[in-house]
Amino acid sequence: MRALVYDGLNSVSLQEKPLPSLASPTDAIVKVTKTTICGTDLHIRKGDVATCQPGRTLGHEGVEIIHSTGASVSRFKQGDHVLISCISSCATCEYCRRGMYSHCTSGGWILGNTIDGTQAEYVRIPHAESSLHPIPDGADDAALVMLSDIFPTGLECGVLNGMVQPGGTVVIVGSGPVGLAAIITAQMYSPSQVIAIDLDAKRLEVARQFGATDTINSAETDAVAKVKALTEGKGADSVIEAVAIPATFDLCQSLLAPGGVLANVGVHGTKVDLHLQNLWDKNIAITTRLVDTTTTPMLLKLVQSGKLKPLLLITHRFKLGDMEKAYETFGEASTHGALKVIIDVD
Amino acid sequence: MRALVYDGLNSVSLQEKPLPSLASPTDAIVKVTKTTICGTDLHIRKGDVATCQPGRTLGHEGVEIIHSTGASVSRFKQGDHVLISCISSCATCEYCRRGMYSHCTSGGWILGNTIDGTQAEYVRIPHAESSLHPIPDGADDAALVMLSDIFPTGLECGVLNGMVQPGGTVVIVGSGPVGLAAIITAQMYSPSQVIAIDLDAKRLEVARQFGATDTINSAETDAVAKVKALTEGKGADSVIEAVAIPATFDLCQSLLAPGGVLANVGVHGTKVDLHLQNLWDKNIAITTRLVDTTTTPMLLKLVQSGKLKPLLLITHRFKLGDMEKAYETFGEASTHGALKVIIDVD
Amino acid sequence: MRALVYDGLNSVSLQEKPLPSLASPTDAIVKVTKTTICGTDLHIRKGDVATCQPGRTLGHEGVEIIHSTGASVSRFKQGDHVLISCISSCATCEYCRRGMYSHCTSGGWILGNTIDGTQAEYVRIPHAESSLHPIPDGADDAALVMLSDIFPTGLECGVLNGMVQPGGTVVIVGSGPVGLAAIITAQMYSPSQVIAIDLDAKRLEVARQFGATDTINSAETDAVAKVKALTEGKGADSVIEAVAIPATFDLCQSLLAPGGVLANVGVHGTKVDLHLQNLWDKNIAITTRLVDTTTTPMLLKLVQSGKLKPLLLITHRFKLGDMEKAYETFGEASTHGALKVIIDVD
Amino acid sequence: MRALVYDGLNSVSLQEKPLPSLASPTDAIVKVTKTTICGTDLHIRKGDVATCQPGRTLGHEGVEIIHSTGASVSRFKQGDHVLISCISSCATCEYCRRGMYSHCTSGGWILGNTIDGTQAEYVRIPHAESSLHPIPDGADDAALVMLSDIFPTGLECGVLNGMVQPGGTVVIVGSGPVGLAAIITAQMYSPSQVIAIDLDAKRLEVARQFGATDTINSAETDAVAKVKALTEGKGADSVIEAVAIPATFDLCQSLLAPGGVLANVGVHGTKVDLHLQNLWDKNIAITTRLVDTTTTPMLLKLVQSGKLKPLLLITHRFKLGDMEKAYETFGEASTHGALKVIIDVD
Repeated sequence: MRALVYDGLNSVSLQEKPLPSLASPTDAIVKVTKTTICGTDLHIRKGDVATCQPGRTLGHEGVEIIHSTGASVSRFKQGDHVLISCISSCATCEYCRRGMYSHCTSGGWILGNTIDGTQAEYVRIPHAESSLHPIPDGADDAALVMLSDIFPTGLECGVLNGMVQPGGTVVIVGSGPVGLAAIITAQMYSPSQVIAIDLDAKRLEVARQFGATDTINSAETDAVAKVKALTEGKGADSVIEAVAIPATFDLCQSLLAPGGVLANVGVHGTKVDLHLQNLWDKNIAITTRLVDTTTTPMLLKLVQSGKLKPLLLITHRFKLGDMEKAYETFGEASTHGALKVIIDVD
Repeated sequence: MRALVYDGLNSVSLQEKPLPSLASPTDAIVKVTKTTICGTDLHIRKGDVATCQPGRTLGHEGVEIIHSTGASVSRFKQGDHVLISCISSCATCEYCRRGMYSHCTSGGWILGNTIDGTQAEYVRIPHAESSLHPIPDGADDAALVMLSDIFPTGLECGVLNGMVQPGGTVVIVGSGPVGLAAIITAQMYSPSQVIAIDLDAKRLEVARQFGATDTINSAETDAVAKVKALTEGKGADSVIEAVAIPATFDLCQSLLAPGGVLANVGVHGTKVDLHLQNLWDKNIAITTRLVDTTTTPMLLKLVQSGKLKPLLLITHRFKLGDMEKAYETFGEASTHGALKVIIDVD
Repeated sequence: MRALVYDGLNSVSLQEKPLPSLASPTDAIVKVTKTTICGTDLHIRKGDVATCQPGRTLGHEGVEIIHSTGASVSRFKQGDHVLISCISSCATCEYCRRGMYSHCTSGGWILGNTIDGTQAEYVRIPHAESSLHPIPDGADDAALVMLSDIFPTGLECGVLNGMVQPGGTVVIVGSGPVGLAAIITAQMYSPSQVIAIDLDAKRLEVARQFGATDTINSAETDAVAKVKALTEGKGADSVIEAVAIPATFDLCQSLLAPGGVLANVGVHGTKVDLHLQNLWDKNIAITTRLVDTTTTPMLLKLVQSGKLKPLLLITHRFKLGDMEKAYETFGEASTHGALKVIIDVD
Repeated sequence: MRALVYDGLNSVSLQEKPLPSLASPTDAIVKVTKTTICGTDLHIRKGDVATCQPGRTLGHEGVEIIHSTGASVSRFKQGDHVLISCISSCATCEYCRRGMYSHCTSGGWILGNTIDGTQAEYVRIPHAESSLHPIPDGADDAALVMLSDIFPTGLECGVLNGMVQPGGTVVIVGSGPVGLAAIITAQMYSPSQVIAIDLDAKRLEVARQFGATDTINSAETDAVAKVKALTEGKGADSVIEAVAIPATFDLCQSLLAPGGVLANVGVHGTKVDLHLQNLWDKNIAITTRLVDTTTTPMLLKLVQSGKLKPLLLITHRFKLGDMEKAYETFGEASTHGALKVIIDVD
């Protein structure tokens, strides 16, 4: 079969690989129909992810059809249509029982990282019963691929961790795909203001289309002063950090209202400053989270009922054969106006 | 009347002052029976608190008797026995409605800071209806003085913000009075392990008497390794920072289990390092809070029912006339083995 | 001034009354600009509300202008535009501190019940600081009158007590004004299904316009079977009872999914059957609540931001002089297709 | 092997049966070391439980040693010491994911009900990975048997559903074994008052030994008046119904404070009256639950740390060979002063 393989620093390529086979009674082998590329895949290509070694098939998102199942898998059978979760969950360890699937002691983020992933024709899914979700007939596969990772990430790490509330004010710093997923899913909780901050006017225009009530170009405007002006001088109840560099994390701290929450979404490579001299008496919280995908079943219901429209995020489509080109396009997203790309495998 | 006055850098003295009078229909004038000295009073004496100017009567804790009340105070009448809250609360502003009395737009921590305080024979209490608590007949006044500030602080900023849970593991870094209040009140939620960390063997001995199941002298032992060893390698579910210097805040970050909470209790004067490169994917939270004293009515019930014994914290007693000596003793707490002191005013 | 007075069984009339005056330092006298009639007013007219005696001016909803204030009212001044809450709250008693303003020991539902109400040119408002809400300039007064009672009632007693969740299923039994308020406010929490049940086809048509995803005419259809069919056989996560008769309360119990909540909104005059033989092991909850109006500030923000449109509920408008006619129209709501009426007082 | 078998109405007997064998890759066969008899077993003997047919081995509690495991069981191996949960949980179905193991679509309460149970030398455990808990070396097996059912039942259905809070007041109606488990576990949350109500003076004496702060013999005293007197006229914040007959359910409704919760623990065979005419405006909740055993890992930690002492509930011990006599003793518990009995199987 064909698979997109990480070859080492700055290189990925489409290669022939043997079909995967069942390794445990709890495994399933699935045939991928649609997948996508994540910002994390670009990090791997850059050599930022030490756990992912050359030779690895990348990818942790996708919609699939069940090909074969291990002896203890009874929830799915050959031919079933399923959505993959980027997080593998055994469902029974202490962390899984607490809803922290990302810290599953025999799972977590392993697909396309420590085991072969979904940017291939077939993939082995461990803990299949608790890591795949049945998809209803007639669903839009491309839309659902957005539920493997990016929508749960925006919702769980951003919106839920940020405690977005009806009538509240939420600021999202960064209007890339994850920031946009946060902007979209924040509206599930009816905040009165959704303020997007970015340096790129085009992205802010997209943010506005996706529901931001206000946008601030921090290259041109004093973002702190503007957020204060929009919030009666208080700052924001929820601040979602979707850039993950020290400068934006600093900005986020300055945007918090008393009692507010700063929800960190992104991957940080270095320590940052925490201004406790300003924050120690402000009754605030700062949260971190690796997506757990506990919300995927709920998101599936909202997509099915038409309340959520993830398709809006998809700007480009490729065939598996053009996977290398897809990486180029997504890797230079701003040049191509790319948000999320869909890879048609079949 | 006599009052303990902040005279400017490193100086406090007992002085004669006129009796306070009602300034608003919502005020009460109360006669102080017992008060105490807080670590914050020592900070004022050192000049660390810019809002508190020379000439100010210090003190924000105490038990009193109502002397006179403004026209709109109907909950209390002359002769009533009351407990003062260190936080004045109007009860009606947006923050008070949300239980954030510390951010009351016309109150907060003002007693012994921006208005005259409780280390005196009489004191004016603004927003009296919502800033005083009735005390039952026969209560132990000295014990209840501990509910003005230190017990709510340990409980709200430490235990509640730290989400201490039945069966959970909690580490308290710092075994001074506030750390001890956290150790005592943590047990209200039945954690399975209460681990105290300090540099002073005597304080750790006290921590053990107050319910710590394990103690670690971080001058002698690798605290991180020891906490890991005590928690099956995971770290602690709740880490309470009750020292407030960069080094201990750093230590606290290293003690967190995945899914844990670091609750900051103390006053920080400088920024600290936040190791997001280690924490971004650990599903943790860091919280800050200025005590709101929302829990005071609940604590009163627990003291009355004998479930909480705040008297244990009191090591020294003084008369108001010996107030300057009381400051000396409390100011060198470790020399004198002092935890909390009680000042008898009448 | 003119006031609509309850004269005793089945009779209300517009009468001349003296202007109200300040009775306490915490009072305000307000000039009513717009008010409305509540289903509860009809109950009073029928003699169902023993606490309301003949001679009482009715009404507990409205938008007003501050005319005069007591000595301790500092939040409002003459000329300020305010929204009245149907619940008077002292903000400081134990119940108010817990957000249960409806059980305020010196307030609760007293307006137009045990003291004169808002269907008049002027009204005295006790606990003015904590029972009135400032209204922004340019707001639509008629829309905001819906926030005095009916919207908080639908939201608090129905949606919040019913724990409506993103992706969840909610059934509202009864599509009268309160049921519609629940249908509208339920959508703030993004349920995937909002199912309205009523006996009246016209009301169900309105329910659908207001966001019901499915409607069931229980006069024609087996409602239990239909709800099961719509929910994969499980029943509903949230069932809101907005009729308040034994038959509908019975129906609601049969509609609950395991783990579901039955939120009672209405006023019951008799006991009902509770089918514990079926429910004891279903992990369900049944809740009751008299509206607390804790959500009014949040609802104000959502109306101001355009996310909520209460104006949709208003079908008829009258002048204060036509108040008796307004009662006739609202009293036979189904004949007139009436939902809520607005009374212009000035 | 020997097994205690339900023979039909009013009859159980010790019989020889073949050893159980693995039926699914997720099964384990365990050797029972200690088990107990539950009130539910007596209900089965009386013919009250339609799902349990003659020929069934009874029992759903116990401590065991792993004898053999199915192919997909990796968490346990032969010789491991484990605690059984009375509820079998697949961990992956919608209900298990929500913590409602009692409604597991392929589990729930099946042991000693629809499949053979634990009152035998060996038993087959379905979903072994998520239905057994590892036991630490040196644990007291007899104490831990109390964590299979009765402690989680008292805690989850009574204390957690009843929202017992620090400083709150809790009434437990019924001082049988389950009521006592609620009394013991309620103290994990530090209520200020724990009031036990029963008709039997001896049981109330036991309740007091286990931590009840007040006891009321409702055969002699007006329980409603007494609870009001103990709670400043308000009633109780949490009322736990541990008898399950209409009369006690009625009593519980009269004991509720505004804002209180009535937590039903027991099995009801008929409908009851719900006095909504009194309760509709009291902001109360009524809850039901079949124990989920989600709290078992937490309870294990508290027993290990010495904070909980379940051994106190055990009054009698028998050998498996005397099982029929054990049923007689437990069946006439009050005659024998029996609370819980332990059956030593090995």
